[in-house]
Amino acid sequence: MLIESVHNNIVKQVVSLQDKQNRDNNGLFVVEGYKQVSDIPETWDIEYVICTEKYKDINFKAKTYSASEAVFKKMSETKTPQGILAVVKKQKRDLENILKEKGIFVVIDSLQDPGNLGSIIRTAAAYNCKGIFLSKNTVDCFSGKAVRSSMGAVFNVPLFQECDLIVLMTAFKKHNIKTYALALQTDNLLANTAFADSTAVIVGNEADGVGENILKNADKLVKIEMPGKAQSLNAAIACSIAVYEIFRQINIK
Amino acid sequence: MLIESVHNNIVKQVVSLQDKQNRDNNGLFVVEGYKQVSDIPETWDIEYVICTEKYKDINFKAKTYSASEAVFKKMSETKTPQGILAVVKKQKRDLENILKEKGIFVVIDSLQDPGNLGSIIRTAAAYNCKGIFLSKNTVDCFSGKAVRSSMGAVFNVPLFQECDLIVLMTAFKKHNIKTYALALQTDNLLANTAFADSTAVIVGNEADGVGENILKNADKLVKIEMPGKAQSLNAAIACSIAVYEIFRQINIK
Repeated sequence: MLIESVHNNIVKQVVSLQDKQNRDNNGLFVVEGYKQVSDIPETWDIEYVICTEKYKDINFKAKTYSASEAVFKKMSETKTPQGILAVVKKQKRDLENILKEKGIFVVIDSLQDPGNLGSIIRTAAAYNCKGIFLSKNTVDCFSGKAVRSSMGAVFNVPLFQECDLIVLMTAFKKHNIKTYALALQTDNLLANTAFADSTAVIVGNEADGVGENILKNADKLVKIEMPGKAQSLNAAIACSIAVYEIFRQINIK
Repeated sequence: MLIESVHNNIVKQVVSLQDKQNRDNNGLFVVEGYKQVSDIPETWDIEYVICTEKYKDINFKAKTYSASEAVFKKMSETKTPQGILAVVKKQKRDLENILKEKGIFVVIDSLQDPGNLGSIIRTAAAYNCKGIFLSKNTVDCFSGKAVRSSMGAVFNVPLFQECDLIVLMTAFKKHNIKTYALALQTDNLLANTAFADSTAVIVGNEADGVGENILKNADKLVKIEMPGKAQSLNAAIACSIAVYEIFRQINIK
């Protein structure tokens, strides 16, 4: 079917999914770009694919609509749309099963930049982290920007949204997962910290770091050593360096 | 002086500095935001500051113009301008003196995203890197986005633009600085590599990595281990993890 009008209901739905409330209510999100759509694992349900003329001969194993370039541009969140997107169903993850695993868990408290969140998800997938847990006031991991920055990693690491981090930390304790919060107000240096085989690293807001209440409940505060003049690292980079160091300790030496 | 017209020559100059060619020709760049303008070190020459009513009582130790909010918006590269910017003179750095230092050097080959570049500069400043060297086709480190993402770090680490990387690598060799290129096509893992006290890490383009010609000239290729499903890390994150690991080896253990 060729969609030629921006008033078409499919177009309206895709545009509506730019809004978190609508993504939450419908349990759907949008994936844009050829590589990212092609890489959606078969275990995820694609509601439909929409593409322009350019991709019309490709079989995406899902219901596929064609759209004119003008209509596609209306739906796209990127400046120079590739001309392909998919609407995908979110998956429910089982927290109890995830917490039984051994490895690295990532907890995110009040992060605001979707690009940073996407980069963290990408790093977490690269290091085979067992789950990412987002506080209630963290930016949505299914926003277009976060999904694009994750480079498809949203499909490869279990994501838990709207977590009450205090409740979560109690669950971690029960499962013998140690919690380490990244903070500046401590003398414990990252590289000198001996991490447990099951470790949760907590990263905070770009400007304010991890919240006081969460810091109080963490097993340990950890500081990334910075001898130079910059007062802090980008939040996604700080989180990634911590994940690398924990991975290195558990797996390499 | 209050600037009320968008046709004012000062306004025209600030807008013109959004273009790399004009930044290069004039040796000037723009710093936006209250914290970043306040943090400009005294060793840098500020041509002038422009601010709205909100900041009129602050003494920036530089020639200061006032502008209406409408005029400021015209000059600003951000969606919600804070209402303050400075035009700053670039500094010339002495390559030979920098190469005599011991420590970490960062080489960037064909990186395209200014946000990534800014984050790398921020990390390099945090780890007291001795210099950052940008290939000719790397995005401009003095673009507004790169400067903002660096969070003021452009002032705290020597930046060399438009470098011929092959010539640079010869200079590194002469000064006994070992070169390590981040790449996927090697079995040398980052955490298992013993880094020299004077180390240059080379990071490449977001999609294509470090160029073939540069890889051939590097002392060693190094891969960041990734056991999970993501095929690569964000370029700024890969570079930052490498800088962290080199720093850790040289300084901590």
